Amino acid sequence: MEKIEDKNQQPEEEQVVNPWEVSAKDGGKIDYDKLIDKFGCQRLDQPFVDRVQRLTSRPPHVFLRRGVFFAHRDFNDILDAYERGEKFYLYTGRGPSSEALHLGHLIPFMFTKYLQDAFKVPLVIQLTDDEKCMWKNLSVEESQRLARENAKDIIACGFDISKTFIFSDFDYVGGAFYKNMVKVAKCVTYNKVVGIFGFTGEDHIGKVSFPPVQAVPSFPSSFPHLFSGKDYLRCLIPCAIDQDPYFRMTRDVAPRIGYHKPALIESLFFPALQGENGKMSASDPNSAIYVTDSAKDIKYKVNKHAFTGGQESIEKHRQYGANLEVDIPIKYLSFFLEDDAELEHIKKEYGAGRMLTGEVKKRLTEVLTELVERHRRARAAVTDEMVDAFMAVRPLPNMFD
Amino acid sequence: MEKIEDKNQQPEEEQVVNPWEVSAKDGGKIDYDKLIDKFGCQRLDQPFVDRVQRLTSRPPHVFLRRGVFFAHRDFNDILDAYERGEKFYLYTGRGPSSEALHLGHLIPFMFTKYLQDAFKVPLVIQLTDDEKCMWKNLSVEESQRLARENAKDIIACGFDISKTFIFSDFDYVGGAFYKNMVKVAKCVTYNKVVGIFGFTGEDHIGKVSFPPVQAVPSFPSSFPHLFSGKDYLRCLIPCAIDQDPYFRMTRDVAPRIGYHKPALIESLFFPALQGENGKMSASDPNSAIYVTDSAKDIKYKVNKHAFTGGQESIEKHRQYGANLEVDIPIKYLSFFLEDDAELEHIKKEYGAGRMLTGEVKKRLTEVLTELVERHRRARAAVTDEMVDAFMAVRPLPNMFD
Repeated sequence: MEKIEDKNQQPEEEQVVNPWEVSAKDGGKIDYDKLIDKFGCQRLDQPFVDRVQRLTSRPPHVFLRRGVFFAHRDFNDILDAYERGEKFYLYTGRGPSSEALHLGHLIPFMFTKYLQDAFKVPLVIQLTDDEKCMWKNLSVEESQRLARENAKDIIACGFDISKTFIFSDFDYVGGAFYKNMVKVAKCVTYNKVVGIFGFTGEDHIGKVSFPPVQAVPSFPSSFPHLFSGKDYLRCLIPCAIDQDPYFRMTRDVAPRIGYHKPALIESLFFPALQGENGKMSASDPNSAIYVTDSAKDIKYKVNKHAFTGGQESIEKHRQYGANLEVDIPIKYLSFFLEDDAELEHIKKEYGAGRMLTGEVKKRLTEVLTELVERHRRARAAVTDEMVDAFMAVRPLPNMFD
Repeated sequence: MEKIEDKNQQPEEEQVVNPWEVSAKDGGKIDYDKLIDKFGCQRLDQPFVDRVQRLTSRPPHVFLRRGVFFAHRDFNDILDAYERGEKFYLYTGRGPSSEALHLGHLIPFMFTKYLQDAFKVPLVIQLTDDEKCMWKNLSVEESQRLARENAKDIIACGFDISKTFIFSDFDYVGGAFYKNMVKVAKCVTYNKVVGIFGFTGEDHIGKVSFPPVQAVPSFPSSFPHLFSGKDYLRCLIPCAIDQDPYFRMTRDVAPRIGYHKPALIESLFFPALQGENGKMSASDPNSAIYVTDSAKDIKYKVNKHAFTGGQESIEKHRQYGANLEVDIPIKYLSFFLEDDAELEHIKKEYGAGRMLTGEVKKRLTEVLTELVERHRRARAAVTDEMVDAFMAVRPLPNMFD
């Protein structure tokens, strides 16, 4: 039995992490070790990183070697199967609740692109427009419009069209996918979803109905145009750890309906500019860097809003050095500055007080501006025809090549 | 506000009527007057019957003139609209939980065929294979097989293929239909479905998710291939009154999402052979006449199992006459013997003791055998190609002619 979180039985919750709420105890930092214990997943430690490097014959992604993806479930089974010459497929997704993505939204997609390239495997990307229509009270039409807009940002991450199927629930739910939804729903009681997701009786039944929708892309038979006759293909899900509740439920059900449990590889949360105890908020544009921000916006936000561990005066900074543990420019650089040596150098110099906050912020501004500019150019090149092509229900004959 | 039954608030329920349970108080008869009061629907009285006759220029169906369809919601609005020259569409359905239908199952379809012919309107028929897969724990494949088998019995009732679309949920859920499911689900809380349907926390979430599936055929936009651009077309639902909870919910939601409330025309329950306090039971083949029964089966069941109001000896019978109130042969004849004069004659003679139970049973056996033989011949003529044709997602260009 896997450990199942039960929110209702823990009224004195120290920290809350579920798909709709992430909050630490007393406004502090998320305790990821406790989260791993509570969720019952595994730490993704160095031997995994080394093994991925060996199996794929390429350097591990910065998110892997720096522990951004820090937890997993059965990732070892995926690697064992891959080593035996078996294939698997990737599944990730996004709830299209806003037009512009921030950098935190890009993390699973940047990492999934790396996994697709490194393992040469097919990928399905679910846009849960139905979920956002229900949770955010958007109209069906607006949810669908946002799904297509977000698809452009996702495509801009560089996915291989010969290996990638993007779908929106409003377009794709039905047929084999709906049959799997019903099979999952039969195996999950209302009390169980209350335990996992914390629904109340005043929540609408759309919320109660939704978990199977996010569950079934884990099963190859939900995609007969891709995986017909490959019911035993394994599935690996890269996602932020707040999505773990959906897949704990899915893994619980999978063997009861004749499927493999999906494997997971799970990331930390990307912190707000205001610090790790802040929250990136759609209503506060200064809490995050958006892929639509200009170079000027980025410079302003980093200089004005990034919480730092630098000291209050240059004299004190030279004397004590920066507190790297709470410093957002250092956190952000550790996500996005690829050069390990340069990152180590900055941390060493900044931590010793020889480098000033302004200099670190300047380097971060350069790194983020380059990332955002590159994304913007890539997105501008994504046409409606390309979105249609990625979202077409079609076979992918070369998906394992 | 319509009156909403709340099972949970009525622990001392006198009678229970919902889509999964029909039971009278203390094993007695269902009190239909109380049911009308409790559900908040209207009695379908003689002026309605007369009006239908006038509007359609044909004799009202036996089920209408004898009060088998005895209750309604907003049927007057349908007739008003029809009188103004507006059209409507019919929606009925079946949960395909068994191979062979009994006579009670045929009642809504026989009546719906009459309505289709009399008003010359299109009809959608929902086969809820997803529901039966979840409630009866059938496999997806078995539910789908039963849906097709039941479709043959339904087609055998004589529906006009140019005006009729039959669909199974496993085939058809998706697209515009799924979007309407999400719109409905957003408007209904878990507490509300508990109140209406009596679900408990140990019920699986498939049950909680299902009511929107049965709700949305009430909305023309769920069928874009039929009713595109006709969002304001009214819907009339002929059904047994145990389905009323689904449509109370639907009618509550409809105006909130921009649709007409569907109108209803609702029937009594068809009694078991053992009497009105008996239940037709799939596990007791002697409790009902099936459309697959032979003439010999029918004769045996009527003679052996039909509960009668005749007296225990011929002498007493001649003296007191039969109690027609509890007599199943008389009930069955009042459903299926079309000749009003003959029925009145039988009731008068039998009630006065001049006609014996055996004679009434003999006449009933003739009537049922003819009905069942006619159905069997019609069903034998239904090919798989005809099922495919009725179930094809296609426009019906002449559906209002």
